[in-house]
Amino acid sequence: MNLKETGIPAPILLNGSWKPARASAVFTAFDPTTGLPFSDHYPISDFQDIEEAVFFARQAAREMETIPPALTGAFLDRFAEGILRRVDDLVEIAHRETALAKEPRLRTTELPRTVHQLRLSAAAVRDGSWRQAAIDSKLNIRSIRGPLGGPVVVFGPNNFPFAFNSAAGGDFAAALAAGNPVIAKSHPSHPGTTRLFAEIARDTLVETGFPKAAFQLLYHLDPADGLKMVAHPGIGATAFTGSRRSGLRLKQAADSAGKPIYLEMSGLNPLFLFPGAVAERGAALAADLFASCSLGMGQFCTKPGLAVVLDGDAGRDFLEWARERFHSSPTGYLLNLSVRESVCAAVEELIKNGAILIAGGHPLPEPGYRFENTLLTMSGERFLQGAGPLQSEAFGPVTMIVLAESEEVLIRIAESLEGNLSASIYSGTDGRDEALHDRLALILRPKTGRLLNDKMPTGLAVVPAMVHGGPFPATGHPGFTSVGIPASILRFSALRGYDNVRPNRLPPELQDRNPTGTMWRLIDGTWTQGDVSS
Amino acid sequence: MNLKETGIPAPILLNGSWKPARASAVFTAFDPTTGLPFSDHYPISDFQDIEEAVFFARQAAREMETIPPALTGAFLDRFAEGILRRVDDLVEIAHRETALAKEPRLRTTELPRTVHQLRLSAAAVRDGSWRQAAIDSKLNIRSIRGPLGGPVVVFGPNNFPFAFNSAAGGDFAAALAAGNPVIAKSHPSHPGTTRLFAEIARDTLVETGFPKAAFQLLYHLDPADGLKMVAHPGIGATAFTGSRRSGLRLKQAADSAGKPIYLEMSGLNPLFLFPGAVAERGAALAADLFASCSLGMGQFCTKPGLAVVLDGDAGRDFLEWARERFHSSPTGYLLNLSVRESVCAAVEELIKNGAILIAGGHPLPEPGYRFENTLLTMSGERFLQGAGPLQSEAFGPVTMIVLAESEEVLIRIAESLEGNLSASIYSGTDGRDEALHDRLALILRPKTGRLLNDKMPTGLAVVPAMVHGGPFPATGHPGFTSVGIPASILRFSALRGYDNVRPNRLPPELQDRNPTGTMWRLIDGTWTQGDVSS
Repeated sequence: MNLKETGIPAPILLNGSWKPARASAVFTAFDPTTGLPFSDHYPISDFQDIEEAVFFARQAAREMETIPPALTGAFLDRFAEGILRRVDDLVEIAHRETALAKEPRLRTTELPRTVHQLRLSAAAVRDGSWRQAAIDSKLNIRSIRGPLGGPVVVFGPNNFPFAFNSAAGGDFAAALAAGNPVIAKSHPSHPGTTRLFAEIARDTLVETGFPKAAFQLLYHLDPADGLKMVAHPGIGATAFTGSRRSGLRLKQAADSAGKPIYLEMSGLNPLFLFPGAVAERGAALAADLFASCSLGMGQFCTKPGLAVVLDGDAGRDFLEWARERFHSSPTGYLLNLSVRESVCAAVEELIKNGAILIAGGHPLPEPGYRFENTLLTMSGERFLQGAGPLQSEAFGPVTMIVLAESEEVLIRIAESLEGNLSASIYSGTDGRDEALHDRLALILRPKTGRLLNDKMPTGLAVVPAMVHGGPFPATGHPGFTSVGIPASILRFSALRGYDNVRPNRLPPELQDRNPTGTMWRLIDGTWTQGDVSS
Repeated sequence: MNLKETGIPAPILLNGSWKPARASAVFTAFDPTTGLPFSDHYPISDFQDIEEAVFFARQAAREMETIPPALTGAFLDRFAEGILRRVDDLVEIAHRETALAKEPRLRTTELPRTVHQLRLSAAAVRDGSWRQAAIDSKLNIRSIRGPLGGPVVVFGPNNFPFAFNSAAGGDFAAALAAGNPVIAKSHPSHPGTTRLFAEIARDTLVETGFPKAAFQLLYHLDPADGLKMVAHPGIGATAFTGSRRSGLRLKQAADSAGKPIYLEMSGLNPLFLFPGAVAERGAALAADLFASCSLGMGQFCTKPGLAVVLDGDAGRDFLEWARERFHSSPTGYLLNLSVRESVCAAVEELIKNGAILIAGGHPLPEPGYRFENTLLTMSGERFLQGAGPLQSEAFGPVTMIVLAESEEVLIRIAESLEGNLSASIYSGTDGRDEALHDRLALILRPKTGRLLNDKMPTGLAVVPAMVHGGPFPATGHPGFTSVGIPASILRFSALRGYDNVRPNRLPPELQDRNPTGTMWRLIDGTWTQGDVSS
């Protein structure tokens, strides 16, 4: 698309002002229910926009070094309040751009969660305990987690227009809570939602007197510029949530420049349903499986893409109950054309590798982007023959039930799995599955971020113990989580040591006196909320 | 060298037994004081040795999942005791292989530190607080740090035959404390020292009933096999301490496979000496500078390679005092031929980029590997013209004093610096340097792991607040430290979530009852040593 053909695209947010982008091209989002473009145009920024955003963000990073936690907390809280004043507008535009249901999804679930994340982040900033201050008083050696010295670039995903939005979601909140500026790159499926968040954020920056470039917004980039951006010497780190293909390309670019990058690339989120569970509540589990697979039209990072049961009468009943659900339930709209295309390709790939289609399997007629609720099946032995390609994610209402010929086959399937965000084990209440559980859990544990019992993996409570992470290729590093506060903040922090630094030059959090009276610090090897005793 | 010419090399340690390596070549270490080879031959393992070591280590990793902390602690403590029973032998062989002084360096400083690190790691394992257990009791969502599921490969450096030895040092202790098996790769300059540690470790494995493959030893690898090893799908992570060149090659290989790698690649460790400090105690600081630069013959990761002073009479006096020290002090032996060659090349590179030699600058006659104590100087403006190449490390008794024409130039030098492990600021006691300090510290803070005041960076206390880390290219990630317990253990841990997991299946550390009564856990948002209240 050429600029001349389309008129002026929306301005980008640079250093506190809405400015025309340096753009040689523009884009529009498309209505998922009609496939028609929206009338608003947005710019695909040239590298010069990136350079400017990084330049201003580095100035902001330096200003933020000396900003008191109370101000950062105030910014995050006021932003949350600003969002609450625009709920109707946000729900309206997000619904238009994503076709996700207004109720309960957008208004009652995702928007409150987004506000909650911002408020929890504000509380964590004020509390300060997440910074893991450590003091060895005799030697006057001290350390604390602090910001990275440059902006965090946030690439938001397509599937959560609020809670993972690059201009308001979990990564945004965590990066700012750690003291870093954010440069958001909107997802091109919901630029209008992102723009509205950015307007609220910009107004909040002005209102609270926060550095102008603490938050900036670009809408879209040429892929090659995206790779250059994550390797830019001026940035601190990158957060990316999205497809494995894009994530791995960004990872390579960031790694080569020594820049931290946190990737949330999802995966299969396997379920293992043991005989006891299937016998006790097979029909209910089949219903739960369908509900989890179709939540948000299957466009969840934690959607279960594989369910393993033992073959036999009970396993076949389970398969049939699930088939009925997938076959008879209505389907909705996918987020965009690219999602539909990738679901088509993924289902084709599964079938090519031996999966048998027993419900759905095809795109639905236009207008709009739809795909049938789809259930596949195959034997365990056959799965093991293609365990590599059979682990590609189908990001839509698609799952596969594998009928394992024996417990040994089930165990070997678990052995063949890649790193995953989650894995669920369903077992009977009468103890008969315990031996199998113990064998399986030992295999799954090191290759799984979040291990569940008797529970579907979709739905992430934002609590301190939540783990939304896991070993590669689910993410880029097994030691972090992108959900759960304060743990998610740690990704965007550097460990800073102070050796023999004069007391008046120490940050307040490392001085002898506890600056809040409640902040937890490791003083001379003991966690305490107290002062350094003199 | 061909096997047939040299006889049988030393066996490697695989799965609890000393076995002949699959080696097509062998190597010997060389006496740094004579340049002559030692008589012991060691194997350069083929990839088949690596495959076997990884295979056995993965079995050990699974066994270690259910080993109680008390046993891991006992292994580490008993190993420390075993080392203490062999102090004379260890000091003797390390001295022979490295030419480092027996007293105080090896016997009184480095060996006790090594034993201390093992004991602190044992204590951290028993205490369990490092695992950051978190419990949200209402939702039954829990998380804890656990092992990686595969071995940690440890590449030890040349310069600390005890404290960073791959078979006994800080990475070894941290990886085991996190519950991972270790595959050590010895540094080829001190294979005999490493072999002795490995013999003690192996005996301790047997004595304590620890998994046989929890620790294995390979002596040397073809570089291409090293790259394959850090990318091996079966490993958990890699720890590397050494040169930037080797580190970056390993990083690329590990990154491409999604395997965590922790690199400690050192750097310049700049000093900034302000007018007040130079006026008050310039002669003493010049002596301190020489002492720090010549400690261990300048072969410290934290050796200061750059000192910046303001030009003028005081700055020139400081330069002259330092020159006298460098010129008049005796020099010792470097660790090996390769160190001498790289020091020669680094000094040449500095001179090529405008540095002026004012003391030393040349290798000393053989026998043995020696290099003169070397001091270079240049103006600040000139430094800024070549700030890239002038930041290459000279790993020996070499430093450069830059005379900055003004405070502005000094600030610009700081702006030009890469990420470093440390940076030191010396200032007057009368307050006259405070404004300059505040400007400089703001610049140095985000690019420095450990910021010091009035103190040379060599010498690392092993205390919880120690930071031996920093931004790339000093290390591979700014959020970690390789020294300081328990913080260094975190590198080798994965974050593990438990969602709705049945109580009897939870690890003891995540059950309602605090298993030690003293372990710190984050329960419902509050750090406590207590139980989950019912």
